[in-house]
Amino acid sequence: MLVLLHADSTEEQAAAVEAAITELGYSPMRVPGRNRTAICITGNKTAVDAGKLRHLPGVVDCVRVTKPYKLVSREIHPEDTIVQVGDIQIGGSKPVFIAGPCSVETEDLAIQVATAVKDAGADLFRAGAYKPRTSPYDFQGFGREALKTLAKVREETGLGIVTEVTETDAVELVAEVADIIQVGTRNMQNFALLKALATTDRPILLKRGMSASLEEWLMAAEYLIAGGNPNVILCERGIRTFSKHARNTLDLNVVPLVRTLSHLPIVVDPSHGVGDRARVRPLSRAALACGAHGLLVEAHTHPNESFTDAQQTIDMPTLKGILSDATLLSDLEPL
Amino acid sequence: MLVLLHADSTEEQAAAVEAAITELGYSPMRVPGRNRTAICITGNKTAVDAGKLRHLPGVVDCVRVTKPYKLVSREIHPEDTIVQVGDIQIGGSKPVFIAGPCSVETEDLAIQVATAVKDAGADLFRAGAYKPRTSPYDFQGFGREALKTLAKVREETGLGIVTEVTETDAVELVAEVADIIQVGTRNMQNFALLKALATTDRPILLKRGMSASLEEWLMAAEYLIAGGNPNVILCERGIRTFSKHARNTLDLNVVPLVRTLSHLPIVVDPSHGVGDRARVRPLSRAALACGAHGLLVEAHTHPNESFTDAQQTIDMPTLKGILSDATLLSDLEPL
Amino acid sequence: MLVLLHADSTEEQAAAVEAAITELGYSPMRVPGRNRTAICITGNKTAVDAGKLRHLPGVVDCVRVTKPYKLVSREIHPEDTIVQVGDIQIGGSKPVFIAGPCSVETEDLAIQVATAVKDAGADLFRAGAYKPRTSPYDFQGFGREALKTLAKVREETGLGIVTEVTETDAVELVAEVADIIQVGTRNMQNFALLKALATTDRPILLKRGMSASLEEWLMAAEYLIAGGNPNVILCERGIRTFSKHARNTLDLNVVPLVRTLSHLPIVVDPSHGVGDRARVRPLSRAALACGAHGLLVEAHTHPNESFTDAQQTIDMPTLKGILSDATLLSDLEPL
Amino acid sequence: MLVLLHADSTEEQAAAVEAAITELGYSPMRVPGRNRTAICITGNKTAVDAGKLRHLPGVVDCVRVTKPYKLVSREIHPEDTIVQVGDIQIGGSKPVFIAGPCSVETEDLAIQVATAVKDAGADLFRAGAYKPRTSPYDFQGFGREALKTLAKVREETGLGIVTEVTETDAVELVAEVADIIQVGTRNMQNFALLKALATTDRPILLKRGMSASLEEWLMAAEYLIAGGNPNVILCERGIRTFSKHARNTLDLNVVPLVRTLSHLPIVVDPSHGVGDRARVRPLSRAALACGAHGLLVEAHTHPNESFTDAQQTIDMPTLKGILSDATLLSDLEPL
Repeated sequence: MLVLLHADSTEEQAAAVEAAITELGYSPMRVPGRNRTAICITGNKTAVDAGKLRHLPGVVDCVRVTKPYKLVSREIHPEDTIVQVGDIQIGGSKPVFIAGPCSVETEDLAIQVATAVKDAGADLFRAGAYKPRTSPYDFQGFGREALKTLAKVREETGLGIVTEVTETDAVELVAEVADIIQVGTRNMQNFALLKALATTDRPILLKRGMSASLEEWLMAAEYLIAGGNPNVILCERGIRTFSKHARNTLDLNVVPLVRTLSHLPIVVDPSHGVGDRARVRPLSRAALACGAHGLLVEAHTHPNESFTDAQQTIDMPTLKGILSDATLLSDLEPL
Repeated sequence: MLVLLHADSTEEQAAAVEAAITELGYSPMRVPGRNRTAICITGNKTAVDAGKLRHLPGVVDCVRVTKPYKLVSREIHPEDTIVQVGDIQIGGSKPVFIAGPCSVETEDLAIQVATAVKDAGADLFRAGAYKPRTSPYDFQGFGREALKTLAKVREETGLGIVTEVTETDAVELVAEVADIIQVGTRNMQNFALLKALATTDRPILLKRGMSASLEEWLMAAEYLIAGGNPNVILCERGIRTFSKHARNTLDLNVVPLVRTLSHLPIVVDPSHGVGDRARVRPLSRAALACGAHGLLVEAHTHPNESFTDAQQTIDMPTLKGILSDATLLSDLEPL
Repeated sequence: MLVLLHADSTEEQAAAVEAAITELGYSPMRVPGRNRTAICITGNKTAVDAGKLRHLPGVVDCVRVTKPYKLVSREIHPEDTIVQVGDIQIGGSKPVFIAGPCSVETEDLAIQVATAVKDAGADLFRAGAYKPRTSPYDFQGFGREALKTLAKVREETGLGIVTEVTETDAVELVAEVADIIQVGTRNMQNFALLKALATTDRPILLKRGMSASLEEWLMAAEYLIAGGNPNVILCERGIRTFSKHARNTLDLNVVPLVRTLSHLPIVVDPSHGVGDRARVRPLSRAALACGAHGLLVEAHTHPNESFTDAQQTIDMPTLKGILSDATLLSDLEPL
Repeated sequence: MLVLLHADSTEEQAAAVEAAITELGYSPMRVPGRNRTAICITGNKTAVDAGKLRHLPGVVDCVRVTKPYKLVSREIHPEDTIVQVGDIQIGGSKPVFIAGPCSVETEDLAIQVATAVKDAGADLFRAGAYKPRTSPYDFQGFGREALKTLAKVREETGLGIVTEVTETDAVELVAEVADIIQVGTRNMQNFALLKALATTDRPILLKRGMSASLEEWLMAAEYLIAGGNPNVILCERGIRTFSKHARNTLDLNVVPLVRTLSHLPIVVDPSHGVGDRARVRPLSRAALACGAHGLLVEAHTHPNESFTDAQQTIDMPTLKGILSDATLLSDLEPL
């Protein structure tokens, strides 16, 4: 159960609620929100009787939550969350397009690609400064230098920046440049990183772990919101299955379910999801058709010359095609 | 390699080609097609030199095939296969809709549901007479009685019938009634059944095995074509993965790849694919958006009262919604 | 619930029990056993009150079964089933060893390999006459000819024969030669085949489907027992997972659980399970150590020259090593 | 390719080798080892010609490595690595037993359990101070307090301590107490954490990620060795598959393969691997039988009263049984 407090409730009121919960034999856990505080009751084996809590000073409501994730759930927050990034809204009726190369290369090239994706109609620019790589011998991203380049890209093009953070120590640095901070699939359950990101004021794009259940993914998002950051964007990017015809198996089945269970926006990354350039456009269509709030795609002006993952990187005509598909698909009746 | 013979080549010519292949140290395998014969060369470790074969009497062409599946491959058959069932074309630019209940119930109910799905705009009626069931204690379908009911349904509504066969001995019986014979996911590698079906003149709807690789699936289709039945429709219906938020994981990633690798039509079954009524319409949209030639959906006038699998069966308003979505989606640029 | 009848109960008594079940609003299903008949009550949503049935003439007991599989369950049959094949017992404290090549080749070679596996200490000879093959162009076994060869092998060596059946029409033929009939992984849910095999008097070795859940596998065994054949041997042979370091993932986790849930014997096939000759002996040790009643291994006098699957076929010294390991492992305390 | 330098080679010699590599058009990467330095050549598309490097001053050898992991590979290091922890050797012929509760509870209880596992014959004590938990509302371990308790346990019992670190910032703190630092399954590809651990002088127990391929796992170990920490112990703990009869699917198939491909010791965690107390002993037997260098098991004097995961925690008689099994299994012929 969650006890929701008034936006202007006092610390004394919150403490009194916690004391009352403790007296009932449960454990209170303070959940600081940006606008209001909630107190989560844990340690109960059966349903909590809210009678004694509902009328305490400062309490707005007591909400029973049937899922292990609470703040992420529509039960607590029935209306859609819309994450605002400059002029861009993620989670509304207009899909958002995040595009760019796998990693930041030279400044000239980054600006060139960013300009091209902007011209194609993309809303935000993505590129990696820190790259989590399976091999210690592989290129790990240009790090701080790449962050400076990304700052330059924003200055030149006006595009908001989406880039990944892979370690707690780099959160502050990345937050200075990124408009949205990405958590990669390998870090979805890096709880120390999630806790650090919960305290930034940047929206977080949380990729699904490659073998994460839906519940585990939503619980990872719960870490972010419970830690104080309500601006979470979920990103489906393919799961690991027996199937070998694609690098991963893009699991579009989650999209409509996430929209039912949670108020958070969900975008889809078909580039990593299928890992095959030729299938990015058809799967982008599919993602938008089944309800994704946007796409994250690897795109490059010269895909074959990009540092990494050329196999999955699309070119500009394909990106424009996807944006044109999206216009048509936006006429589908909302479900 | 495949040696393709003229439509009017003689048995003597074919035998001479086989003899020449044997003389080269390989094994010939006759592949009887409906229109023309091919001879598949097996037993070669390296590329076959076609020089000695190309100019034999009756030979049209010698085609190198890089895939283990040959007749299924676009390399052999570059243009799309269109399967004709009455007036309905499967594999063309207009998507086809196959709808109906899980299994045949009473005659009245079958006709009622068939009439409703026809009114909603569906092209073909599906319902099970023989049901493969995990438990020997579960309802196994009404068998022969149900086939009679299906014949009645066609008579009354004019809809073509799609129904499953689960054993070799029933192939003839089912072929009398079915316009398309379905091979279920558990029988995708029931090679005896495939061989029997290769000799009927009914089109086959071949569901993907629940843990079948793309190659295994195409090889199962190869059994049908190599055995003489070119009218094969592939059907993606969800694979088995770790993910528990859906009964299966509908793998739309295969759809655009199948269209590239093979000339056969591919339809999608979102009902079994996700096993959740609420997600059938969004995933139907996704399937059509990424290139499926049609859908196979479980639909019922009273889904909650159907014998089985109510959880995944949609009602008529939802079916109509899907058909209306399809109209909009048909404006997407062909890829 | 199962109503168990006396061994000498009459048809009238059985019919009276069925009538009583029907009157209670449930459906009776006759389950003919070799020694006694049971009547399975289906169609109940809640627990059945056995009061009215327990005292009917001919009734021994009414047994509540909490699992969907009933006759397979230890709840119904607490003592271990021991399958007797000539002098060999499968399911007792002494492990059984079934060895031989993938498929029957020439008669000379078959006798040579059989003699060698007998000398190495194996109990039964396995070799395929009918081979289920992914490709229609691959060698499908020598069929009837191979069955004759197997008959000859038994005559010459005295070894019992284990061989696979892949289609209903061949059951009778195979049953004439085989001491144990194998159902392969692709046919685990070929229910028509299971029903046909339920009526033979040969024991059945039922391989687990490559993506079968434990429950589905036990339900497949239930088809055999419910159809009248109590002599079922389960065989774990690897499941399909994301993991690519082995052809399949041998799932030894099931072995101790099967022994708890069911009274049926379970053997392990490490050859297909891991598909890598070098790992067959260590995994054989592991299988026996965790409670398998025996092993099914591909072995050949000249593994590199065998027709198929040389990659997983072990030689005679390795087979002898496994048998010697088994002697040591048999000193492990029974659990 | 790796260029191995003499233990007493100078910085000037190393720099000269790097310059020579650069001149050949490749990239050198310094790999500092505890005893000697190696220089890894990357950026080559084809085999490197070692002729010009082999005879440079300070060079011992140039070793071609066919795998993406290099320092982990037996190609570089043919003899088994033995990790020494006090008197205990991990990776030798005598298996090692690491046992203890999921997490540190009270000091009294920790000492009680540690004393009991020592009496049962275990070599090292494991217990969690920092717990990675799916839910932010679940108990996350007692952290620093628990580390103090673990220090006390070692003082009282003499047992070496194995405990997990979940974040870079805690590495130093944990290293003060732990004799072996555990990296959990969710952090196997937390590369920042791996890099930090590469600089400690504590051995690392690296659990396999729950959907990690064998190669990804060995590459994670490569991060540790390439960063300067050669004392890596691999730990198989179950993978995520479709199979639901166990919490995870313990993948013993990797054990003999890891022993072939790598010189690192491998232990098995059957407790998490199967997640079912009743199957821990049979699977422990299996793990040892197929070549594991030891076991990591959850054990408690009062398993049902432990804070977490009682379902998989064994009691002391079971632990003693496993140790007694191990004695018998140690008579198996080395493979």
